[in-house]
Amino acid sequence: MAKIDYPPAVQNLIRQLRRLPGVGPRSAERMAVWLLRHGGECFGALSEALIETQSRIAPCAECGFYVQDEVCLVCDNGHRDSTQLCVVEQAADILSIERTGAFKGLYHTLGGRLSPLEHVGPGDLRISELLGRIRRGGVQEVILALSADVEGESTSSYLAERLQEFELSVTRIAHGLPVGGGLEYVDDLTLQHAFSGRAPLRRAVVYPKDDVGKSGG
Amino acid sequence: MAKIDYPPAVQNLIRQLRRLPGVGPRSAERMAVWLLRHGGECFGALSEALIETQSRIAPCAECGFYVQDEVCLVCDNGHRDSTQLCVVEQAADILSIERTGAFKGLYHTLGGRLSPLEHVGPGDLRISELLGRIRRGGVQEVILALSADVEGESTSSYLAERLQEFELSVTRIAHGLPVGGGLEYVDDLTLQHAFSGRAPLRRAVVYPKDDVGKSGG
Repeated sequence: MAKIDYPPAVQNLIRQLRRLPGVGPRSAERMAVWLLRHGGECFGALSEALIETQSRIAPCAECGFYVQDEVCLVCDNGHRDSTQLCVVEQAADILSIERTGAFKGLYHTLGGRLSPLEHVGPGDLRISELLGRIRRGGVQEVILALSADVEGESTSSYLAERLQEFELSVTRIAHGLPVGGGLEYVDDLTLQHAFSGRAPLRRAVVYPKDDVGKSGG
Repeated sequence: MAKIDYPPAVQNLIRQLRRLPGVGPRSAERMAVWLLRHGGECFGALSEALIETQSRIAPCAECGFYVQDEVCLVCDNGHRDSTQLCVVEQAADILSIERTGAFKGLYHTLGGRLSPLEHVGPGDLRISELLGRIRRGGVQEVILALSADVEGESTSSYLAERLQEFELSVTRIAHGLPVGGGLEYVDDLTLQHAFSGRAPLRRAVVYPKDDVGKSGG
């Protein structure tokens, strides 16, 4: 007897939903069933949202953030401090930083990080665009806000090296204990970073000294 | 200073993705960012799958299963046992049962269950369609495979009552210990059901006696 399964169109929908990050076979099926149950309006709203995003959103040629109808909410905002340039891996990282309210400067998205294993070299990242922006002048500090893992670290070191030719300070965001986390939950490397980046308690703002030294030297 | 956020089209996409079951704000954002990073092909494939499913899939007028191009894989399959009719809440439940291979008969989807709190009464479910199918003859056993919660139970009782007029046996799938589960993980009510539905070890197939009695009486 032929095995009963979803009709081909539903199977394809489940397959497409499964490609989304964090969606396993069971949740893709649950989503498809939910859509089938809720019918036309939900299908239409989601597929229209997909089509509109695809057609209207593009990366900003300058900073790499998402741009709708050629207006970049960061670059086209006259109130931001253009002397500070924060380098991030992905456009979405910009919003993570924006939510903190800790930074009022401009951004530059690399589009990834150096990864020999995944064949990502300097030519695959927006590094020449970064150097071009700095050459045009006005930037006094480049803040590297890349991942705190091996690949993020080596990308930071590489950028610090490439930025030596410019008269500016290159800093890296601090690595250390996450706020609210106890020492017992933190791994060795983080704790090591937390120690080497320790700061005197009576100063307002502290940059990790060895990083500033590395980039300036 | 204006708060930086995703452009409106992306915000709308995130909003639509969030409506899917099991998708919170963070995962909706991750999905949208993933789609933006992977570009056109993924957008297109997903939105086409949505549109195709919406336009080609409809519920079977007979059993309520998903039908593509007017062919029902269950009802239009000549090899199934039409003397057994299994009543389920949702079309997707049919596939859960099909995967077990435990049932070779036909199905009837109610489209929900009785729920006074959510204003779902008998008229909102496909109960008259069920009675119509049975009146046409040929059905010897109706197997109720509804949820094992209060609403599923009361729907089962209601259906058993309504089916009294027919010359057929009405059974309910067994409630008890999930296979692989120890007694320490099971709730009181399940354990109570497991006791009242206990079966002699030397018989091949056992129906819970009190249920058969209830429906026949």
